[in-house]
Amino acid sequence: MHAIEKILAVNAGKTSVHAGEIVNCNIDIAGINDLYYQTVKSFWEMGGKKVFSPEKIVIFFDHYAPCATEKQADNHKKFREFAKSQGIKKLMDINQGVCHQLMADYGLSYPGEVITITDSHTNTHGAFGAFGTGVGATDLAVVLVTGRLWFKVPEVIRINLAGKLAKGVYAKDVILHIIGNLKADYAVYKAVEFAGPVLKEFNISERMVLCNMTTEMGAKTSYIQPDEITMKYLAAHVNHNYKIYNTDRDYKYAADITYDVSEIRPQLAAPFNVDNVANLNEFAGIHIDQAYLGSCTGGRTEDFAIAAKILSGKKIHTGTRMILVPATRFVLQECLKNGYIQELVAAGATLTAPGCAACLGIHQGLIADGETCISSTNRNFPGRMGNVNGRIYLGSPASVATAALYGKITDPAECF
Amino acid sequence: MHAIEKILAVNAGKTSVHAGEIVNCNIDIAGINDLYYQTVKSFWEMGGKKVFSPEKIVIFFDHYAPCATEKQADNHKKFREFAKSQGIKKLMDINQGVCHQLMADYGLSYPGEVITITDSHTNTHGAFGAFGTGVGATDLAVVLVTGRLWFKVPEVIRINLAGKLAKGVYAKDVILHIIGNLKADYAVYKAVEFAGPVLKEFNISERMVLCNMTTEMGAKTSYIQPDEITMKYLAAHVNHNYKIYNTDRDYKYAADITYDVSEIRPQLAAPFNVDNVANLNEFAGIHIDQAYLGSCTGGRTEDFAIAAKILSGKKIHTGTRMILVPATRFVLQECLKNGYIQELVAAGATLTAPGCAACLGIHQGLIADGETCISSTNRNFPGRMGNVNGRIYLGSPASVATAALYGKITDPAECF
Repeated sequence: MHAIEKILAVNAGKTSVHAGEIVNCNIDIAGINDLYYQTVKSFWEMGGKKVFSPEKIVIFFDHYAPCATEKQADNHKKFREFAKSQGIKKLMDINQGVCHQLMADYGLSYPGEVITITDSHTNTHGAFGAFGTGVGATDLAVVLVTGRLWFKVPEVIRINLAGKLAKGVYAKDVILHIIGNLKADYAVYKAVEFAGPVLKEFNISERMVLCNMTTEMGAKTSYIQPDEITMKYLAAHVNHNYKIYNTDRDYKYAADITYDVSEIRPQLAAPFNVDNVANLNEFAGIHIDQAYLGSCTGGRTEDFAIAAKILSGKKIHTGTRMILVPATRFVLQECLKNGYIQELVAAGATLTAPGCAACLGIHQGLIADGETCISSTNRNFPGRMGNVNGRIYLGSPASVATAALYGKITDPAECF
Repeated sequence: MHAIEKILAVNAGKTSVHAGEIVNCNIDIAGINDLYYQTVKSFWEMGGKKVFSPEKIVIFFDHYAPCATEKQADNHKKFREFAKSQGIKKLMDINQGVCHQLMADYGLSYPGEVITITDSHTNTHGAFGAFGTGVGATDLAVVLVTGRLWFKVPEVIRINLAGKLAKGVYAKDVILHIIGNLKADYAVYKAVEFAGPVLKEFNISERMVLCNMTTEMGAKTSYIQPDEITMKYLAAHVNHNYKIYNTDRDYKYAADITYDVSEIRPQLAAPFNVDNVANLNEFAGIHIDQAYLGSCTGGRTEDFAIAAKILSGKKIHTGTRMILVPATRFVLQECLKNGYIQELVAAGATLTAPGCAACLGIHQGLIADGETCISSTNRNFPGRMGNVNGRIYLGSPASVATAALYGKITDPAECF
């Protein structure tokens, strides 16, 4: 069996499961974000009285925090009341940040867990050896009532990363290259596992980028076998028992693909699809109105460190604005401690509150009609940042910062 | 003549003017904020081709920055295009902050100027010995075309501040007390001058608070005679020639009122009017959902210093959230340098981008139905922070921080 199958089997009370089988699993973490008050409504509609286990439920105020509309504020209020009445202590209020990074910051992500959050990028938690998957409001309401949810056991695709990364090439470039190559529907309802020697070069943050973006190739979940890098991270962050599952040697992958990362140059996903990927240099010179650094994909301390390195002592280009959205308060605090935020604000960037912000066009930096944005986020669909006539290029934090500096798409190699 | 009359006379090309007279004045600074793209539309409708003097025009992106809606972003884009086509260099983009504090930060406010901005709190600039007044979009469009605007020369009310401030009492408490006493319509179309020995205890920031809030008693403008405190500030910030005008000894004030500030205790303006003022202690114990520190009235470095002193090493109360909105990027940078932001974020506060934010219910911290907010801003009308059933108490930054700490309205004396 694959490690993912073992996780599902244990949580379904079975000794073995196989791809295609429907299993009903115990859920370790049921996360609701503030886009989905519908979850609570559905909970009541289903006849829910008390949630299955208050300590396994986390409510995240990330998409709307701090509120830009009366309705958002009302939703938050109702969520707070729900949490209080149900004894849910893990309510991440407007001062916290994006769910996936908070899961890591608070040591809630660890090997062997089954994590369901009402957010499509819950695949992220494969970086910790967990089974993480995004679910809708109704499914999450089922979890609130029963503590369980059904899944079809996914086939697994293994992506092996070999070779050596060139300077200025990051996990984001690697995963964009893969998505561009395999396309958006390649892994529909499959799991994507990352393996290979390059993983040793990727810390937890970079692994989270890889797993996060598998959603953009249709994957149900993602996985990286815990290793010494994972263990070191877990030792520092996680105060909880966990079990690591290993894939059996005879497990048959649905596909086994190897990429030589040495050949990968900085990548961009051009409008209007995440799989519309090419070398950044093919777009060099395109004017950038807004450079956006943030999100569950590209708003971690390491991302701000790279941007600060590029922009320290310099000024962002006239005619280009730069938005900074630390993923969480912990990221903000680390970046303040290290001076990254100070350097980026001095360069002319606009710091906003931790959260999802303009990644999905809610607030804190929407783009105008006909404007072009380069972003470290994970989606570039029409209207994603607030305007169907806006154009979004997705790239690494280094590519975002370089574009901010030059006012146009530019190879980050210029900055090293 | 009063100094204000001399400023208006000189700018109208007259040797003398008198209260009630209509004068047509040259404008030194014509400021447009991003709420008023209508100004540009009116400029075109009036047959405007080129603005009278690009260097005297400032465009401020403060109410909408960073944008929470597509329309806001489109307005910004059109403003940028207008500025570019007209040679207006002073466009304060989304990384800058609130107009009135930016005027100070950039050394654009100084004695003898006539300042018109499309913002009601333009009275603020009386703190520098300037004639500042808020105007509508159409009036500002007239200025863009002609460089001039008519005013009725206002009568002047002098408010003398005597005595000694008690600990925990600030300029905000003093002006709230005065507004509560004189009421919202007391100074309609009049100028309010502050004088008296207590001014020597008030730095420029505190003087800006006094002048800013005269709008809430209906004043057309405000004034403080430049003194050594002003001169010291100007020497450090202003790189421009200016002239100081003095009021003639025989000038007859419309009213001459003295307040003994020694008797003033921390004040709050209760819902739903700024002149609904009483001692804070009369409201002690009221639960606070949100404590809001920011705005052109209460978002300066000194304000964050006070809040940081109160909250350093502590945690904001469970069930209360705290929003931080530095007035400008300079304020943000000063606060970061001094560690105030770091201390407040560690205490659990939510830092947002410089600007007007939720002060007038646009974004970055709206309140929900039935919630109560204590705020260092200047208006508490129904719906002001996004919900007509929300309740806003206006107070000093110390009162805001103290409420954040205890989760209820509490005398800041508890913290000293």
